[in-house]
Amino acid sequence: MKNQERTKVAVVGASGYTGEELVRLLLRHPHAELVAVTSRQFAGKAVAEVFPRTGHHSTAKTLKFSDVSPAKIAEEAEGVFLALPHGIAVDFAAPLLNGGARVIDLSADFRIKDAAIYREFYGHEHGAPNLLSDAIYGLPEIYRDKIREARLIACPGCYPTSILIPVIPLLRKELIEPGNIIANSLSGVSGAGRKAELDYLFVECNESVRPYGVPKHRHLAEIEQELSVAAERAVTIQFTPHLVPVNRGILTTLYLTPTVLGQDPKRIDAAFREGYANAPFVRVLDDKTLPDTKNVSGSNFIEIAWRHDPRTGRLIVMSAEDNLVKGASGQAIQCFNILSGYEETAGLL
Amino acid sequence: MKNQERTKVAVVGASGYTGEELVRLLLRHPHAELVAVTSRQFAGKAVAEVFPRTGHHSTAKTLKFSDVSPAKIAEEAEGVFLALPHGIAVDFAAPLLNGGARVIDLSADFRIKDAAIYREFYGHEHGAPNLLSDAIYGLPEIYRDKIREARLIACPGCYPTSILIPVIPLLRKELIEPGNIIANSLSGVSGAGRKAELDYLFVECNESVRPYGVPKHRHLAEIEQELSVAAERAVTIQFTPHLVPVNRGILTTLYLTPTVLGQDPKRIDAAFREGYANAPFVRVLDDKTLPDTKNVSGSNFIEIAWRHDPRTGRLIVMSAEDNLVKGASGQAIQCFNILSGYEETAGLL
Amino acid sequence: MKNQERTKVAVVGASGYTGEELVRLLLRHPHAELVAVTSRQFAGKAVAEVFPRTGHHSTAKTLKFSDVSPAKIAEEAEGVFLALPHGIAVDFAAPLLNGGARVIDLSADFRIKDAAIYREFYGHEHGAPNLLSDAIYGLPEIYRDKIREARLIACPGCYPTSILIPVIPLLRKELIEPGNIIANSLSGVSGAGRKAELDYLFVECNESVRPYGVPKHRHLAEIEQELSVAAERAVTIQFTPHLVPVNRGILTTLYLTPTVLGQDPKRIDAAFREGYANAPFVRVLDDKTLPDTKNVSGSNFIEIAWRHDPRTGRLIVMSAEDNLVKGASGQAIQCFNILSGYEETAGLL
Amino acid sequence: MKNQERTKVAVVGASGYTGEELVRLLLRHPHAELVAVTSRQFAGKAVAEVFPRTGHHSTAKTLKFSDVSPAKIAEEAEGVFLALPHGIAVDFAAPLLNGGARVIDLSADFRIKDAAIYREFYGHEHGAPNLLSDAIYGLPEIYRDKIREARLIACPGCYPTSILIPVIPLLRKELIEPGNIIANSLSGVSGAGRKAELDYLFVECNESVRPYGVPKHRHLAEIEQELSVAAERAVTIQFTPHLVPVNRGILTTLYLTPTVLGQDPKRIDAAFREGYANAPFVRVLDDKTLPDTKNVSGSNFIEIAWRHDPRTGRLIVMSAEDNLVKGASGQAIQCFNILSGYEETAGLL
Repeated sequence: MKNQERTKVAVVGASGYTGEELVRLLLRHPHAELVAVTSRQFAGKAVAEVFPRTGHHSTAKTLKFSDVSPAKIAEEAEGVFLALPHGIAVDFAAPLLNGGARVIDLSADFRIKDAAIYREFYGHEHGAPNLLSDAIYGLPEIYRDKIREARLIACPGCYPTSILIPVIPLLRKELIEPGNIIANSLSGVSGAGRKAELDYLFVECNESVRPYGVPKHRHLAEIEQELSVAAERAVTIQFTPHLVPVNRGILTTLYLTPTVLGQDPKRIDAAFREGYANAPFVRVLDDKTLPDTKNVSGSNFIEIAWRHDPRTGRLIVMSAEDNLVKGASGQAIQCFNILSGYEETAGLL
Repeated sequence: MKNQERTKVAVVGASGYTGEELVRLLLRHPHAELVAVTSRQFAGKAVAEVFPRTGHHSTAKTLKFSDVSPAKIAEEAEGVFLALPHGIAVDFAAPLLNGGARVIDLSADFRIKDAAIYREFYGHEHGAPNLLSDAIYGLPEIYRDKIREARLIACPGCYPTSILIPVIPLLRKELIEPGNIIANSLSGVSGAGRKAELDYLFVECNESVRPYGVPKHRHLAEIEQELSVAAERAVTIQFTPHLVPVNRGILTTLYLTPTVLGQDPKRIDAAFREGYANAPFVRVLDDKTLPDTKNVSGSNFIEIAWRHDPRTGRLIVMSAEDNLVKGASGQAIQCFNILSGYEETAGLL
Repeated sequence: MKNQERTKVAVVGASGYTGEELVRLLLRHPHAELVAVTSRQFAGKAVAEVFPRTGHHSTAKTLKFSDVSPAKIAEEAEGVFLALPHGIAVDFAAPLLNGGARVIDLSADFRIKDAAIYREFYGHEHGAPNLLSDAIYGLPEIYRDKIREARLIACPGCYPTSILIPVIPLLRKELIEPGNIIANSLSGVSGAGRKAELDYLFVECNESVRPYGVPKHRHLAEIEQELSVAAERAVTIQFTPHLVPVNRGILTTLYLTPTVLGQDPKRIDAAFREGYANAPFVRVLDDKTLPDTKNVSGSNFIEIAWRHDPRTGRLIVMSAEDNLVKGASGQAIQCFNILSGYEETAGLL
Repeated sequence: MKNQERTKVAVVGASGYTGEELVRLLLRHPHAELVAVTSRQFAGKAVAEVFPRTGHHSTAKTLKFSDVSPAKIAEEAEGVFLALPHGIAVDFAAPLLNGGARVIDLSADFRIKDAAIYREFYGHEHGAPNLLSDAIYGLPEIYRDKIREARLIACPGCYPTSILIPVIPLLRKELIEPGNIIANSLSGVSGAGRKAELDYLFVECNESVRPYGVPKHRHLAEIEQELSVAAERAVTIQFTPHLVPVNRGILTTLYLTPTVLGQDPKRIDAAFREGYANAPFVRVLDDKTLPDTKNVSGSNFIEIAWRHDPRTGRLIVMSAEDNLVKGASGQAIQCFNILSGYEETAGLL
């Protein structure tokens, strides 16, 4: 564990829900000292004014939002979290890295290794393709060792986290067919961000359940990239997101086809138990319990359960996480802990 | 159309949400005269007292819940709706039918043609197997002609309605593989009934999203029975229900594998458009719109949309309905309208 | 009752929640023929496209939003509903009235008799002060006779309706002190309108309860005007609105000081029972029941209950209504029914 | 501050929402060691099984619910929290105190100093009237010094906390009339407890807003007792609770009549700022912000704001708290911290 008591950190673009969650978690983190928070929109306002929930915290009362350059931020902070929209984060990364900061990006900008796939899914050329090979996909359960050495972390999307953690151990052990994966996901409304759009008004979401982004959601790019790594072959999956009226939470139900090996329940169980024996935030449930988003809401945990269906032969795997914590800001801090040499759970329990 | 202005009707066991919805719809139905409402629990109380929403209606103020025998009910009413739990409805059907009433049962008791399958899914012997062959499955979009002549209607379950209406036209036209159907359903909490159980408390459901009944929910029995009829072969499907925090609504997402024929979008479109050309409550959406439960909540409509996924080859079909209306009481009244010779939409628009 | 079967109506500015509710109610109204719907934003789109819930209705499929002049609308329609923001409705009224239409305005523009008070509360000069004396305040329970003869109806605000209906009978009978009225109101989020503002996002409203507009909300102007008429003296009240996470509904709790007369429970009861003996949408509850917004949601009813507190001497009066129906569009149609000579309840049960 | 690193604590009757919240907070408390959790219903089950949110915690996995005697608990734990229903907690207090434990009771059993008033409001004789004089009312903002020395703490009710904290400073400074206090409170559904009753089902609470307990709620007994102490005369108030569809949170709006002194805004402000200068959990908002339950949900903070209404002369004071934290379990731990000599905020930030 690191000797250094506290690492200076900054949050860039902290105006949305993931930014707010980052700030809240960092303010109470035992080893982080929040020295800068930036936002064009809120520049000049105190953190406590913008995020009333932090109103009691002494730093929140005194620290003001600024709108300074990446170079300036790199002078002040060793660790910099980017909570910017995709396509914008990319412009901050290079100057921050050049300034010596370690960068933990919560946008999609550095998740995709292949700039052509980025263009296919995000509709424009990547702004810094030379940095793509440096970026480590910030899923600690899979890339813990690489994260430890990383300068640039690309934190996974909320849906990908909920799919990759349950599926990768099964693919690695060849327990499921890689060509026949269906992921049906339900997300709380905070996943849409803090955008003043009619679709996300209370009245439009309350008493509403609806699919969207059918059939080609952007998160497919990173999901398939990472599943392909695990399967050691190209994987294409079916993925359907839905919006449900909760603030937080993603519930993913996976329809999988076991291989011959995967028909042995002990192997499925072992894949999860062994795969995540040292993963402090993965809870593999017993065979009487199913995941429920309310059991992980506000926490960095992800719950996983599975059932074999003898009638169809399929394997049903279900996961639950908080999209803003394990699906975004909590996971970013988990990465920060690892690369800074702190306890992986610091500030997250 | 029928000459008779009004038909005398009764609702037996009107203490839950489907019973309440039946009573509300019947009170404003132009051709129904509600003459009896029974419930052991509420016997002696006025309808308006038990169901405050009906408080302005003159019949609701004067009509009292009773706890009379089926024979007595059959004397008073020509059409009798059973809103009883499964296993209990069966005991009311024979005396009502013998008394000359036409019976519209909302329980599961007469949905399954095969008493052995009933026992497999419901855990006890069927109470009146001799009546099973008389019962017509009350899905007007599929069995309109048979409903017209029926004495005993077995109204479909809420989940089955949301699955059968979108899938049957595709199976009939051989556009999808019958052996590879996955139905992922999200239901509002009223689907659990009006039961004083911890699991359905506000605090347990609000900010919660969760699967349940994995992998073998009772509704599979009737879903597979009806899909098998449409496919003209035995069909086994995957079905996962989830509970989401809305009062009303079911959103079902179907993952289907097109046959060669089914890869032609025009055939898919034609199957729905032609199949439901005369179905007043089926709305096939255009290709820019996806179903949303809030657009059918409180109504007897079901919305359907579909998308081909060129990446996986799958066909994604989505439906939205109100589980208490199209999934229960509204559909029961739709059946009543048909068998009584009224406009199919009477009292439902 | 009127001989004429149907009256041609138009809705101007039907892009928000009250506009949508008006359109829905008018489409199923037995005596209204919707001939025009206008909205700059939606011009050219079919009603069914903009309001998916109406998607099955033949008129909704064919009638397109337009953006025509008031003069043109007056040629087409005899009754015109204005669902425009305040300050804009006023510009439509004169040309419509000149064109011979009867105008039912849902904005605040014609509610205040005194142009100076309008300016005080709405912050700008009134656009057509000469019309103010013609406008009838569209609260049928109080002004039924005047509404019958009106050319211009100013429909009450949602909060005012929930306060005036329970308080006016008590003031008229001198059962309460006019100088000591406190109204604490809780409103669903649809009351804020269909505006893309951060404050009304799902995530900002769900799991949130908050006061706003303290201490001088605009609705005070019309509330105090009408209470002053009933009390025959100037009345100033305390009014605090709150936002609660429901789509629809206003629950108002009134803290009143009984006069000597008002300490006789029979007089309170009689004031309500007699005052509203012929009011089809007012439900005075019995002494065991309290109002609940869910019992009036989606309907044009308002529920009232009251309790004497012997410990404090105060009279607590509570009301519940649907803010979009009795608090807006339903009440507008109730006015339309009265001035058109139809049954007051036509299309509203 | 205390030398001792950790104090052994037990939670008796931990089956409801306050019990769960206590357990969660104590498991992560830096100075508490949870050694026993009792519940007849859950005896034999691990804490992690009963409360899935604690599933990762090593103590939660190993510590099992028991059903042991108070004497046995007193042997194991120095601090004992009672999360039992009123009328039952009283029977545990004497043996626990005799056994040497310090008792922090979350029920109503020791809140009322006068056994006759207890009987009036709770409908039965008090079970241990001799202990009433020993009990300290556990509102740290008012009784911090007495709590430090207490053996038996009676934690305030959720509504009383939301009313007493804003009103007491004003009464003490004689800024408001004690005879004219109205408290209008809105509570989330967890306030009703974890009871399997129809009234608290999701479907009955969602899209519902309703008053209850009008006009004499039990919490009046303790509210008036404590206001009377502050005012140094008998105080009777008006209090109306309402149920709103959130899990957590109480929003109280107070209608107060300023004295001559209280008409000076500086005095009001000073009363709050000075009164709570050393109260780490009270946030007095600035004059642009109003309380919102979502800003305190999950935390032990209470927010207060106030406005003078020049039109009526009244003072409107508003507060927001989390009913399960500041209104129950968080406040209990705040008391525990004080009486154990720890930082008042330990485990609560």
